[in-house]
Parts: sequence; C-alpha cells; structure tokens
Amino acid sequence: MKKPSLSKIMTKGKAMFLAYDQGLEHGPIEFNDKNVDPRYIIKIAKEGGFNAVIFQKGIAEKYKDEIKKSRVPLVIKLNGKTNLRKGEPVSEQVCTVKEALGLGAVAVGYTIYAGSEFEPLMMKEFGKIEEEAHKIGVPVILWVYPRGKSVEKRKESELMAYSGRLGLEVGADIVKLRYDGSVKDLKWTVKSAGKTKVVIAGGIKTGEKKFLAEVRDIVKAGGAGIAVGRNVWKAKDPIALSKKVKRVIFGK
Amino acid sequence: MKKPSLSKIMTKGKAMFLAYDQGLEHGPIEFNDKNVDPRYIIKIAKEGGFNAVIFQKGIAEKYKDEIKKSRVPLVIKLNGKTNLRKGEPVSEQVCTVKEALGLGAVAVGYTIYAGSEFEPLMMKEFGKIEEEAHKIGVPVILWVYPRGKSVEKRKESELMAYSGRLGLEVGADIVKLRYDGSVKDLKWTVKSAGKTKVVIAGGIKTGEKKFLAEVRDIVKAGGAGIAVGRNVWKAKDPIALSKKVKRVIFGK
Amino acid sequence: MKKPSLSKIMTKGKAMFLAYDQGLEHGPIEFNDKNVDPRYIIKIAKEGGFNAVIFQKGIAEKYKDEIKKSRVPLVIKLNGKTNLRKGEPVSEQVCTVKEALGLGAVAVGYTIYAGSEFEPLMMKEFGKIEEEAHKIGVPVILWVYPRGKSVEKRKESELMAYSGRLGLEVGADIVKLRYDGSVKDLKWTVKSAGKTKVVIAGGIKTGEKKFLAEVRDIVKAGGAGIAVGRNVWKAKDPIALSKKVKRVIFGK
Amino acid sequence: MKKPSLSKIMTKGKAMFLAYDQGLEHGPIEFNDKNVDPRYIIKIAKEGGFNAVIFQKGIAEKYKDEIKKSRVPLVIKLNGKTNLRKGEPVSEQVCTVKEALGLGAVAVGYTIYAGSEFEPLMMKEFGKIEEEAHKIGVPVILWVYPRGKSVEKRKESELMAYSGRLGLEVGADIVKLRYDGSVKDLKWTVKSAGKTKVVIAGGIKTGEKKFLAEVRDIVKAGGAGIAVGRNVWKAKDPIALSKKVKRVIFGK
Amino acid sequence: MKKPSLSKIMTKGKAMFLAYDQGLEHGPIEFNDKNVDPRYIIKIAKEGGFNAVIFQKGIAEKYKDEIKKSRVPLVIKLNGKTNLRKGEPVSEQVCTVKEALGLGAVAVGYTIYAGSEFEPLMMKEFGKIEEEAHKIGVPVILWVYPRGKSVEKRKESELMAYSGRLGLEVGADIVKLRYDGSVKDLKWTVKSAGKTKVVIAGGIKTGEKKFLAEVRDIVKAGGAGIAVGRNVWKAKDPIALSKKVKRVIFGK
Repeated sequence: MKKPSLSKIMTKGKAMFLAYDQGLEHGPIEFNDKNVDPRYIIKIAKEGGFNAVIFQKGIAEKYKDEIKKSRVPLVIKLNGKTNLRKGEPVSEQVCTVKEALGLGAVAVGYTIYAGSEFEPLMMKEFGKIEEEAHKIGVPVILWVYPRGKSVEKRKESELMAYSGRLGLEVGADIVKLRYDGSVKDLKWTVKSAGKTKVVIAGGIKTGEKKFLAEVRDIVKAGGAGIAVGRNVWKAKDPIALSKKVKRVIFGK
Repeated sequence: MKKPSLSKIMTKGKAMFLAYDQGLEHGPIEFNDKNVDPRYIIKIAKEGGFNAVIFQKGIAEKYKDEIKKSRVPLVIKLNGKTNLRKGEPVSEQVCTVKEALGLGAVAVGYTIYAGSEFEPLMMKEFGKIEEEAHKIGVPVILWVYPRGKSVEKRKESELMAYSGRLGLEVGADIVKLRYDGSVKDLKWTVKSAGKTKVVIAGGIKTGEKKFLAEVRDIVKAGGAGIAVGRNVWKAKDPIALSKKVKRVIFGK
Repeated sequence: MKKPSLSKIMTKGKAMFLAYDQGLEHGPIEFNDKNVDPRYIIKIAKEGGFNAVIFQKGIAEKYKDEIKKSRVPLVIKLNGKTNLRKGEPVSEQVCTVKEALGLGAVAVGYTIYAGSEFEPLMMKEFGKIEEEAHKIGVPVILWVYPRGKSVEKRKESELMAYSGRLGLEVGADIVKLRYDGSVKDLKWTVKSAGKTKVVIAGGIKTGEKKFLAEVRDIVKAGGAGIAVGRNVWKAKDPIALSKKVKRVIFGK
Repeated sequence: MKKPSLSKIMTKGKAMFLAYDQGLEHGPIEFNDKNVDPRYIIKIAKEGGFNAVIFQKGIAEKYKDEIKKSRVPLVIKLNGKTNLRKGEPVSEQVCTVKEALGLGAVAVGYTIYAGSEFEPLMMKEFGKIEEEAHKIGVPVILWVYPRGKSVEKRKESELMAYSGRLGLEVGADIVKLRYDGSVKDLKWTVKSAGKTKVVIAGGIKTGEKKFLAEVRDIVKAGGAGIAVGRNVWKAKDPIALSKKVKRVIFGK
Repeated sequence: MKKPSLSKIMTKGKAMFLAYDQGLEHGPIEFNDKNVDPRYIIKIAKEGGFNAVIFQKGIAEKYKDEIKKSRVPLVIKLNGKTNLRKGEPVSEQVCTVKEALGLGAVAVGYTIYAGSEFEPLMMKEFGKIEEEAHKIGVPVILWVYPRGKSVEKRKESELMAYSGRLGLEVGADIVKLRYDGSVKDLKWTVKSAGKTKVVIAGGIKTGEKKFLAEVRDIVKAGGAGIAVGRNVWKAKDPIALSKKVKRVIFGK
C-alpha cells in the first residue's frame, strides 16, 4: 500500500481536469470538425494549463506520442459505455490499471451509477481497481452518478452529498459529481467526503457566465476544482476560458 | 488453519464495537457537522473504551494515521452498498481480506441478507472470506439481516434465532443481529449460535434508557455485547454514554 | 486420480450417517435445548456407533476439538442455504474441499436440486468438487433432491430412480435420496445407481416403527444404508434407537 | 497445437460409436434390467466392434477397470443435464478435459443447443474445450442440437445443415446431429461441414429396418457414420444388429 | 505494449479483406456448391489480391495447410454466434488471441453489438482482447453493429458515426461498420474514428455497379477500404470483380 501520488494531478490540493470521454459516452454528436480531433483537446489541455486530460484507452493509445509530447498528465477512464443501450445503467471495466499505466496514465478513473440495479457490480469492480491502484500508489478518481429507476424520487441535494460520501467510503482519492446549484449543499457534500477531494462535473454546455459561477461555487464550498469537458472544448476560445477557470480555482 | 485471535477485539469474551458504516449504507443524511467526521468517531472509540471501531476501507485508508495513533483496534467491513438501489438486497465484496490487513485491520466483517434472492451469492462470497481469514487467524464478524420479499411473513423471533445459527453454521466468530426485544428469544438465539458469539446491533437512535435496557438484555441473555453506531455517535455526550454501556457489558 | 477411501466412512459397503445440517437448512426451529448443541450430536454419533457425522464447516471448526476427541469420522457439507429464500432452489458452495480437509473431514457432501432452474450451476460446481476430491482420494456424497416448478408433475418413483442414476453419472461415491416408500422402486433405484452406493434420507421425524421399517427396506433393496438426522437426535433415547438401526443395517 | 488423433476413434474416416449418456439425459426410464448396467454396454461395444463407447465421467470412473479390460476406446461427454429442468435448454461442463484424460478417454464430447437463449454460454465453453483438447491432440466431438423457443419455426433441413456447418466453424473434429430423413439434405450437410466429419444420432428406438436404412443414408451422403444408443442397446440382439451396422458403414 | 503490425494486413493504409464468417453467422443457406468450400474462398483471396481473409477458428484449423500455402494473411474472428437465437444480440468469445496466433493469424477480429442489452459484456471482453493483442503487437479489427431494441429509433447516420468513434475509443486499429449510403456521413464517420482506420462491410449481395459505387464512396470519404464477403464470393467471376475493387481502393 503506497500513498497515492496526488501531486501528479493536483496543485496544492486543487485541480482542473479536461474530460474527453464524451465520444464514447454520447457519440460524436457532441463534436464539431475541430473538437472531434483528440489533438485539439491535447492542445487545449496544454495551453489552458489543465492538471490532467482524461481519455479512454483507445485515444490514449492512438495519440500516445502527442500526449507524451504535450507533457499533460494523463488520466485513463477504466470503464465506459455507449448511450445506445437503455435500461438500468451499467458501465463495465474495459481497461486494466496495468494497461492504463502502460499507456502512460498517472491516475485512473471509474464511474459508479449509484442506485442502479447494477450498482453491486460496479462497486465490486471499483473495489478491485482501488486495491490494485493504491497498492502501487496510483490515484483513483471516482465518478459517482446516482441513476436508474430506484433514484428517480430522491432529492438532488441528498444524492449529491451521498455521492461525495460514497467516494470516501470506497476509497476514491477524488470524487467527481454533479453540482445541484446550491453552495450550501456543496459545502455539506465536501464535508461528507472528508479527506476525499471533490470536483464537480462541467456538465452540458452552458453560458460562460453561468459556468464560471459554478466554478466559483466549488471554490467557496472548499472543493478541489472541476473536471470540465464540453464547456471548454465547445467554447469559442477554450484557452481564454480555461485561463479564467484557472484563475478562479488557483487564485492566480 | 489458525485459531482466530478473538482477544484482539474482545475482552474476556465480551465486546463493545463502534460501528460507522452508515455513511455508505444510508448516506450522510445520518450525520451532523460533528459525526460526519471520522476523526470524531475515532475519538469516541478511544475515549469511550470500545473494543474496536468498524469502518469501510475508504475511511480506514484516508484516516490511517489517526486510527493508528488512537490505538483503537480496527475492523473493516468487506462488503457494502448504498440504500439508493431498491429490489432484493445484495451487498458484494468491495475489499479483500488482504487489503483490509494492509490497512491495519485486526478483524473483518461481512453482511449476509438471509432470504434475499441473492442470498446464495453472499453465502458463497462469505464462505471464501471465512476460509481466507481463518487460514491466517483473522476473526470474522458476520452481520445477518433477514430481508427481501421472501421473509416478509416470517416471525421476528424465528428470524433472530435463525440469524444466530446461520452465523455458527457458516463459520463466523461473532454474529451481529437485530434484537427483537424479548430476552427469552435472545437467550434461545445465543444458545442456537453455540460457540459463535452474539452481539446485537444498536439500530436507529432511540432514548438512552431504552438503549441501555437493550444492552442489559444482551448481557442477561448470555450474549457477547453490542455493535453500536447511531445511538452513541448521535448522543449528546457519547463518551459518557459509552462508559455506561461499558459498565453494563463488562460489569465494571 | 486416487481410489476414494470409502472404508473411512463405510463398513463392508454399508453405512449409517448422522446428518446435522438442519440448523442451516431449516433454522433452530428444528431443535430443542439438548439437540441445539453440536456436542450432543457428537455424543450420539459416537455412542450410537455411526460411520460418520455430517456438519457444515462452521460447526466443524468451532467444535473441532470435541469431534477429534470423539474419533467419529467427519463429513463436511460443502454447500448450503437457508429456507428463508423462496423461488427456484439453489445451494452454492460455501466450503472448499481443501478447507474441509483442513477441518478434519474424511469425505465431503454436496446437494444438487435436480430440475431446478439452477440445476446447471450445481451440476457444474459439483463436477469441480468431484474432480478435486477424487484426485486425492476423498469420497464424495451427493444429496439429490428433485425440486422446483419443473418437477412438480413428475412421478415420485421416477424421480427417485433418476436421483440414484444422476449420482452414478456425475461421479458420486454415495448418493443420498428420499425414499418413496416402495421397496420395488428402491431396488430399481439401487440398480440404476450401479456402483454408486445408495443411502436414504431419514426425513422428518416419524414414529420409531415406521422409521425402522424404512431402514429395513433400504437393506432389502440392496442399498448401503441411511443418513439420518431428526429421527435420531429428536428421539427420546437416540442411543437406543441408533443401536436398533445399526442392527438392521449391519445385521449385528 | 497438435493434429487430433482421429485414428484412435475412427477407421479410415468412418466411425460407429455406442452412445450411453441417456441415464443422465433422460433418466433410467430408458433402461431395462440388462441395459441399466454399464457392463452390458461395454460388452456390446466390444463384441459389436464399435470404434468407441461414450460415457459420462461417473460411469467412466466407476467402471474404469471393465472399460480398460475391454480395450474399447473411451469418449467422455464433458457436459450434461437432466430432462427434469424445463425452459431454454442449457448443458454446462461437468468434467474437464484433464479429468477425462485421467479417466482414460481418448476423445471428448460436448453438446451445444444452438438457438437456445444459452447458446452463447455453450459456444464459449466449447471454445475453451476445443482449444485445450487440440493443444494436446485430443479429438473433439460436438453434438449440435438446435432447440429452444427461437428455433421452433425453422425448417428441419436448414437446421441440419446449419448444425454441420457450426461444427466446422467452431473447430469440432466430428459433429453429431439428428438426421431429417432426406439423403439430399444430408449430402448438403456433409458438404457444409467440410473437413469436419458428420455422424448422425441414432435417436429413439425404431424398427431395425428403418434404422439400418438411415445408416445406409449417412453412407450414401458421404458422412462418417453413426453414434447410436437406444437402437442398439435396446435391441433384442445388440451384437447381431451392431454387425449389420458395421457392414453398412465399413462395407465388410 | 508493441505498435500493432498493421502493415501485415494493409497496403499503405488501405485494405481489402475477404470476410467468410457467414457460415457461422447465417448458416450454409448463404452458400452454393462452390462457395461452401473454404478452399474456394482461399483461392479467391489469393488470386483476387486481398490483404487478408477472415475465418472463424474452425476453418482456420481444418484448412491450415491450404491457407499457409496460399500465403494469404489470416485474420481470425474471436467471437461468433448463430442466427438461430433471437432476443438481444450477444456474441461471446470462442477463440483466444493465443489460439488464433497458434493457428497462424496475424490479426484478430471481434464484434460488438452496440446498444444491445449485452453491450457491457462485449465491451469488457473486447477490452481484454485489445490489451492482450496489443501487448504483443497484434492488430485488432472491431466490427461495430448497433443492434437490439434500444437502437431501433436512432438515426442511421448517427449510428454509423458512433460506430466509428466507438472503435477509436476502445482501441481498435480498424473498425468495420455498415455504410448508410451517404458519402457526407461517411466522411464524418472517418473523421470521428480519428487514427482508427475505417472499412465498410460489403453487406448482402447486390449488383456489381451498386457495390463498386460503395467502394468508391469509402475511398472518397478517406476510409481505408472494405471487408467484403457475399458480394465477392457469390459473384459469377469473383476474381474479375476483386480486381475491379482493388483498382478502386489502391488506384492501380
């Protein structure tokens, strides 16, 4: 058991990640002629000063040279699914910790759809990944998204706090969750997550103003930062926006 | 096959455990600003004189230093689930015996939802854990909770005795179960569990008087003690209450 | 592949086993203040002259010293379930051959619910157990109980013969089945089982007369004997009854 | 990867197998006082001049000495099921290639219920068996029986040809299938199976005349022979009938 | 992790594959007296100048000598299923990477039915295959076919682009998909697939003119080529047609 090397993907406990797993999760319908190209994303990650870029293993492998050259730290998501399949959500492991490291990753990610009929499968799979990764000091980022027919009537604020706590209980170093819009709720979530760092998901493309307000909220709430995708690489000037985000998070 | 080292978590065959897996099982809705923090729990465990504190692996890892410093023996629950998922209950293994020991645990815990459609899965998984743990002398605590649509019409007293016996039959060193309120039933349960020690679950927060009466009952019934969570760490003065519990169990 | 050491649990091809897995299968509701205690069972097994006593691994472990001291050969049932779960019956492995041997067993047992929706799972699991056990010469006793919605309309006599044959086909050394009450059917069952020995299950507690008549039937039919539980340890004088059974089976 | 030793169970590309797995598949209801005994079958296999006898592992083990003494080559079926369970058919592996070889088998068999809801499970399992067996040159016989609710409306001739082709595609050395009664269809099936040898199943007991006509058909169609059970061991004079079959297949 | 040797199955980034897995996927109903024979296919592959021929493992094994002699590179499909089973599509692994290499394959193939209820199973299985193959530099071709009740209402163009992207995200070197008939859509698909090469499936037998037009479209769209089966081996003069296709793809 080695202490996870969080400094490789965080700066003084804060982080700004560029997420780009939407090609698998939603299909290229999210992309345009520019951001469909992983090289464009790598460029933004580098010039925008992100702590890390998050890819699936296929992109990590095919663009290995470009990633290496950019020196942007790499996080590989270990599970994934399309949005074509309906029914209770489940995302199974498609990449091992070992393969991810072989592809240059310095941290790994995994999604648990809490409340899904398949929650036990993902909990168990994540349990093994956490053990394997922490044995060699590799940080683990956990996406927690409560979903499925069982959670439909639960309160959003309760789900957000539960997501943060789930991250702590199962051993994530960083938990990524959806922000419900209330700083008060987010503060409670950060508190519930204890020593596990909280980052919020950027979510669907929104206006710059609204987006930056959310980033300020996570800072106010004592969270670690943001894992943003669409709001940055769909922006007209991603680099400029990234720098604004950076200023909010790192205060410089 | 080594004799399990029960003396590490029991005192002359009696025990008082502080359970804190509710963050995963029920979410932070159970917590307030104080008890949401695992350090508060560790403090109670230490000052209240508990035989051990029970955590999920994530808390054991993130608060390893604090736990070590407190010298409170650590039990890690090896399976867990959220309460977000509905349907037949199942809780799968998220932590191995090996990982638990690496995190400093001196005993491990596991929950079987007897009567659930998924009972066979948990029975099998526990069977492997028991073998692995006892091979190296690590005590195993089994939570037995009869649940699911098949058990709805069964009598509570029968379920309690069956839970105790199940613990003995599958090789648990200590079985934790819910008390039905009758000392007579509890005596039969303790008898049914044979050489497997019986502790009762503290359950939901109740009045101090009622709670202490239950502790007295387990002593009267010849049981080993209690694994309590909410009734202690939700109390106004957990330390004072813990000492009262201690007096009842250990008679000093 | 070593020849199974049947002589450890049989006497000249005949056997009288004391079964005590009801605590797991039916709960302590089967027990009274005396027979709830495994030590009482071990005493009967010893003084009644049984070829072996059949326990789940938990009892084998907690009462290891008492069993050893009694010198009664030990058979461990490798799978088990509660009667709390309804629906198609399935009983999965909770103890390995290796663990059973470590606990002192000289033979292992397993139940297949033939005709259940989960028959394939149990057939496969038993197949592995048989291979592992026979590789080192450990005898395997197979409980065959046709059950589940598919078998409801099948004839009892056909099911009994099928059970015996199933034991032979999958490699059991001894097959334990329920007797339908007809010596003619039982003869055909014994014939169908070929070189696999047939013992009948004692079943629910009945009158001594009726019970001894059944024992005589199995002898008449050329079977190997009986695996009895409740009819003996629920009897007023289990030792006296055991001796009568012994006389019928071994003719002395 | 070694070339499978087909010469051990075939004579110049032709074969006549004595199948005796009906005790497991249908129960002893198929048997009478003589043919219920595996020794009777071994005798027929030997005196009737069969290329091999086909048993489940239990019979192979319990009658090992008799089989060895007879010098009849042994094929062990690696999967099996009872006919007690209803619903979509599935037969899982109960014997490994390794165990079969340890019991003296020179070839192994496996059944795929093509079209069943569980086809993928059997395809995958057979894939592993084929790899393991061919790695060491052990021939593999595949029973292909299209069954289950999905195939109810398919044409018999198409199913027969598909069965033959399936055998070739997944790597069987010999494919055993049910004959639809048309030589023309059988020719196309043999052609579709390419270098995989085709043998037809004997099926239910029928008149000698009709049965021998079917054997002539498989020869006309260019097939390899027959795997017969009931039509031989239920015959009044199995040896005499076997010799007639032999003359048809081997022309001598 | 070794760079996959794509040059073994591609010529300057272009490719023309002869697919022949229809015997398993659809049965011999697709075949006539000539093309039912794998040797006929090997001859076409050789004389038609294909980059590789695609077989299931059974054909690869039984016709190993003929394939070797032809010097046509071999691709083995690692999963497969019949069309007899209805319901949500799933195709499980029947051949390992190791076995495929032992049979002379220089690349492996796998099908994912995206959107199927069983998508997670195939994603996970492919993930392991990709890791194992790329570890030793073996190229991986992924068939992506969106299918099942969940995708019924999705737009064809979106599905095609999603298929291409899926290939990139999970690490395929070449992705094979169905062409929707629009060059514009195909261009976007090729772009979405990034560094993963796109080949279109030949599909059902159509007129030569229409077929060659499709080949021209894939070239126009910047794709890598085609994996064709029925349109070639069902053609009157497969060699002549193959040469026409070759001219379109390689421009010579």
